[in-house]
Amino acid sequence: MVELGVVYRNIQRADGDVAAKLGGLGTATVHEAMGRTGLMKPYMRPIQVGAQACGTAVTVLLQPGDNWMLHVAAEQIQPGDIVIAGVTTDCTDGYFGDLLATSFQARGARGLVIDGGVRDVRVLAEMKFPVWSKAISAKGTVKATLGSVNIPVICAGALVNPGDVVVADDDGVVVVPAASAPAVLERATAREVNEAGKRAKLASGVLGLDMYNMREPLRQAGLRYID
Amino acid sequence: MVELGVVYRNIQRADGDVAAKLGGLGTATVHEAMGRTGLMKPYMRPIQVGAQACGTAVTVLLQPGDNWMLHVAAEQIQPGDIVIAGVTTDCTDGYFGDLLATSFQARGARGLVIDGGVRDVRVLAEMKFPVWSKAISAKGTVKATLGSVNIPVICAGALVNPGDVVVADDDGVVVVPAASAPAVLERATAREVNEAGKRAKLASGVLGLDMYNMREPLRQAGLRYID
Amino acid sequence: MVELGVVYRNIQRADGDVAAKLGGLGTATVHEAMGRTGLMKPYMRPIQVGAQACGTAVTVLLQPGDNWMLHVAAEQIQPGDIVIAGVTTDCTDGYFGDLLATSFQARGARGLVIDGGVRDVRVLAEMKFPVWSKAISAKGTVKATLGSVNIPVICAGALVNPGDVVVADDDGVVVVPAASAPAVLERATAREVNEAGKRAKLASGVLGLDMYNMREPLRQAGLRYID
Amino acid sequence: MVELGVVYRNIQRADGDVAAKLGGLGTATVHEAMGRTGLMKPYMRPIQVGAQACGTAVTVLLQPGDNWMLHVAAEQIQPGDIVIAGVTTDCTDGYFGDLLATSFQARGARGLVIDGGVRDVRVLAEMKFPVWSKAISAKGTVKATLGSVNIPVICAGALVNPGDVVVADDDGVVVVPAASAPAVLERATAREVNEAGKRAKLASGVLGLDMYNMREPLRQAGLRYID
Amino acid sequence: MVELGVVYRNIQRADGDVAAKLGGLGTATVHEAMGRTGLMKPYMRPIQVGAQACGTAVTVLLQPGDNWMLHVAAEQIQPGDIVIAGVTTDCTDGYFGDLLATSFQARGARGLVIDGGVRDVRVLAEMKFPVWSKAISAKGTVKATLGSVNIPVICAGALVNPGDVVVADDDGVVVVPAASAPAVLERATAREVNEAGKRAKLASGVLGLDMYNMREPLRQAGLRYID
Amino acid sequence: MVELGVVYRNIQRADGDVAAKLGGLGTATVHEAMGRTGLMKPYMRPIQVGAQACGTAVTVLLQPGDNWMLHVAAEQIQPGDIVIAGVTTDCTDGYFGDLLATSFQARGARGLVIDGGVRDVRVLAEMKFPVWSKAISAKGTVKATLGSVNIPVICAGALVNPGDVVVADDDGVVVVPAASAPAVLERATAREVNEAGKRAKLASGVLGLDMYNMREPLRQAGLRYID
Repeated sequence: MVELGVVYRNIQRADGDVAAKLGGLGTATVHEAMGRTGLMKPYMRPIQVGAQACGTAVTVLLQPGDNWMLHVAAEQIQPGDIVIAGVTTDCTDGYFGDLLATSFQARGARGLVIDGGVRDVRVLAEMKFPVWSKAISAKGTVKATLGSVNIPVICAGALVNPGDVVVADDDGVVVVPAASAPAVLERATAREVNEAGKRAKLASGVLGLDMYNMREPLRQAGLRYID
Repeated sequence: MVELGVVYRNIQRADGDVAAKLGGLGTATVHEAMGRTGLMKPYMRPIQVGAQACGTAVTVLLQPGDNWMLHVAAEQIQPGDIVIAGVTTDCTDGYFGDLLATSFQARGARGLVIDGGVRDVRVLAEMKFPVWSKAISAKGTVKATLGSVNIPVICAGALVNPGDVVVADDDGVVVVPAASAPAVLERATAREVNEAGKRAKLASGVLGLDMYNMREPLRQAGLRYID
Repeated sequence: MVELGVVYRNIQRADGDVAAKLGGLGTATVHEAMGRTGLMKPYMRPIQVGAQACGTAVTVLLQPGDNWMLHVAAEQIQPGDIVIAGVTTDCTDGYFGDLLATSFQARGARGLVIDGGVRDVRVLAEMKFPVWSKAISAKGTVKATLGSVNIPVICAGALVNPGDVVVADDDGVVVVPAASAPAVLERATAREVNEAGKRAKLASGVLGLDMYNMREPLRQAGLRYID
Repeated sequence: MVELGVVYRNIQRADGDVAAKLGGLGTATVHEAMGRTGLMKPYMRPIQVGAQACGTAVTVLLQPGDNWMLHVAAEQIQPGDIVIAGVTTDCTDGYFGDLLATSFQARGARGLVIDGGVRDVRVLAEMKFPVWSKAISAKGTVKATLGSVNIPVICAGALVNPGDVVVADDDGVVVVPAASAPAVLERATAREVNEAGKRAKLASGVLGLDMYNMREPLRQAGLRYID
Repeated sequence: MVELGVVYRNIQRADGDVAAKLGGLGTATVHEAMGRTGLMKPYMRPIQVGAQACGTAVTVLLQPGDNWMLHVAAEQIQPGDIVIAGVTTDCTDGYFGDLLATSFQARGARGLVIDGGVRDVRVLAEMKFPVWSKAISAKGTVKATLGSVNIPVICAGALVNPGDVVVADDDGVVVVPAASAPAVLERATAREVNEAGKRAKLASGVLGLDMYNMREPLRQAGLRYID
Repeated sequence: MVELGVVYRNIQRADGDVAAKLGGLGTATVHEAMGRTGLMKPYMRPIQVGAQACGTAVTVLLQPGDNWMLHVAAEQIQPGDIVIAGVTTDCTDGYFGDLLATSFQARGARGLVIDGGVRDVRVLAEMKFPVWSKAISAKGTVKATLGSVNIPVICAGALVNPGDVVVADDDGVVVVPAASAPAVLERATAREVNEAGKRAKLASGVLGLDMYNMREPLRQAGLRYID
């Protein structure tokens, strides 16, 4: 059962070095290396073009139209963390703006992923504080009802445990469980190397049909060419 | 009852100087100074990154897929106005493009906020004519059915009376009733000053928990820390 | 009945020169010249600001979460083509990324319009390969079920036949049937010339009310001015 | 400016007899008699098939996820009223259930129209308490932040002043300003009488083309018949 | 190119007997017999629980907020037809109500499928006139702009040619091209017979895993059972 | 990391008696007893009015447009189970129809909750097999890609572990972790008893303002009454 009104102070963070390397590979590659799992829903978009971030998750559960727990979460941030905020109800209010961003940045946060709205987006861009959100809204929030910090949360359809690696870029946001991070890094790196070779071949005019040996399976599936 | 087929020529505009100052403070600050009211729904987005505008409202009520009244509205624009267009039905058609923008700009309009679609967005960007809309669509419209100009309209969930101050930026669009504009400006200015001091403190590492004295209310609400 | 599992190799493409000229006129003008028809729904958006493309359609019908037929389509691309992909079900998965883009570009494709999701959007921007899509998503796809290539497809609410001219820009995507392309080009060009004159007049302060002789029809429709 | 934290106790209600008669005519007829204005957006749906209600509006402005003001509103209800609830933010939480319905019904309320969610829908149906809402959700709400009672509110895109007549049925919800109610009733009644005659003619096989004399205007608009 | 302002009077209708038999098999079976094609998008829903209809298509293309062409279409209806209405833009207005339904029914129409809104839904239910629509809305429409009758239209993502068989029920709406109707009927009938036998087996406790011989393909795909 | 291609055969089910009692209390009461957590998003709706179900969860993870794993899941069903299906991507296809329902019912399943579409809804109603889904669609699915059975899944924004209690009715779907079920039952029962007394008071005309002692907190929050 979801625990409300608690803050877990000691969480087991994934290795920061592994997190950084996963960030360098990007969401599409990491998500493929996880067997095409771990991705948040595509409505979660960066508010700045070209944004990239990765880190270890500090998780927050918010109540609708109430950002109290983001202030509580700030204290739990360590350098290299990325804050992941779920909300108990769909709500587009602007839970987060330039003041909280200043505080998060001062604590060493690498970014924010929030299943709600944010505001002050021009200042956030100037601060180079990357944010992925469901909406942009100037609507302010209250501080009245408790949620929790560093419990497992669901954010944009993905389960995030505190300490997990989160990688975010223009293609979306992917969550790598802390325990799986080293193995995922290995597979993702292998995939990346493999893709570079493929890209060169395709650029030279070789078709994926031939490079991936698809012609025979397509024929067996019944594909017919008509002139 | 909504009046159709009328154009009010003499409207009471809010003070232009107050409007300009509110514009400088931005939607989030102004909306907070109004007790968190007056904001349009967050689907209303600028079509150009970084757009900013403020002015006194010339209002238009459009019929679905029909932009006739935008031509009627053009004549009512005075320098410093911003045009606010509601539609009697949800419709994403491109009611507004570069020709109307040329005309609006020639009349001194500061921008357009429309609860529908617009087109020619590249040219609008080149013209530096800021627009907030629900959609972008090349779909043309007819000129067949009357709406009205300078009646109260509902645009993206907010009531706009002709002459009201409208402030729009990356965070959304907020409406300040003309009569309240001076008082809102005062509160918004005070808030802005106050925020600058907070930002410096937070940047230095002070936590919102301490700066806002939240620890005791959180404890009383039952927040527990677990190590 | 929609044919599945077929690839038409010999399609009748519209004249490439006509396609290029239509592309230069833009979607809004072309769509108007078609009597305000032929436009895809406005959820079809460019993934890069300022993107523009035009070409002759190679069509693809995809199955949900399955990009097999995009590989089959690659072989059918000729220089000057633009690939138009419909899907049998609404699905936002990332059917297309940098590898397929490399292959499409090597074959001479001018762009992609897909009623689904794409990924690797930063690399696609660097490659200057323009894409219009319904979504951006890192979610990978399988290669298990046949669709078809170069059959008539419905993409974002518009019917596209192989060989049709497709024009795409910031305002959306419009489809011109191959047989109608020369006539549409003629009308669109005439319209463009006409608009330039109008723009100058409006910029000088002439009102659309007068330029389009709207005052009398508005009066007859019952419009009342109130002072 | 929207007033928060206030309850207006003395409101001017439209005549209850007029309200009842408008209710008998239904939303489509009343909305037509208002020149096709006054209608809420079509996402506002009855939670029970065949629901019908009409009354004079007691208005409530709620905060997201907070139903405190519905309790405050209960005291202001008089027999023949219908409660209209707007929310400062889009939120689907279940603000209203069988306990509040019991209280509202005891006070004489004819129904509820809420721009949010409701719960206990089976019991509400058994109680024959009609409700129109944006969503159905078991999600509970808090009692922490003030809104207002009997101020003008926007509900599903329509402006509602306290005391206005509200008519709701399977086709939606329409708002008739109190001052206009008698005139609207007159026009709506005339329209209803007129429609009965038309229905008989159409049932006998007469075409609308002939009954409404559309053939000539269609010909002038350019309609061509092709055999 | 989409023809506007035309009415085709002589259309080739699919065999009425075949249409009726396809209707008896239901949308899911017919759609499967077409290789899982021909289905409209699932937002197209019946306004009455349990509605069923089938017939030969009379097609209409409407303009946003304008139902003029539905009156023109009425004259083209023959007994056994079903009217299919597309709209050039997404619009939820109530294009169709009890008067048009009376006229359509008098002409022998079996129902209406409309990519827009309808109203008077209680009366439509009493009349037993089945309707599938995108929305229910009391919003009235104008009669100002031409569309067409009996041209190919796209309705809820499916291409419909005049004379095609359309089958509609609780599961949605499927379109069978007139030329394919006899062959589809044959395949659908065979499928239906086949399903009855399967149902009995499954009811007796036989698993689909065994009945469809899935265990070996699942094993080959790598499925692992863990105790 | 989400495991793909696995079936857990031995799961720890919550006590069936506790599940049945929770079912009798309904989703709103159970969700309140969990501190307002555990609820699926409100787009998850019953396909039959008045549907009610509860049971212990057999979980399934499906791939887009692919229902293979539902057949695998059938074998794992025990009497008293309810099947909960998540999908790796948003997809409205009809994954489930009358044949699978026959099989599930034969195995003793109490119902299905699926984050996708279903079909044959009339037959499902006749069979009295309750289903909660995101969509209704006749669209068929393939059997090509592995998901998993009895792993933790996210369904409509809620985390479901195999064996958890799931309660579903007209108000939505709530998930009670197996370990918490007895405690939740206790709290929910207490709440139910408490509500009965409140209902009687409210029916007699007592206001919630007085029954819940809200007048003083409202005054302290600043509520003003204006005559």
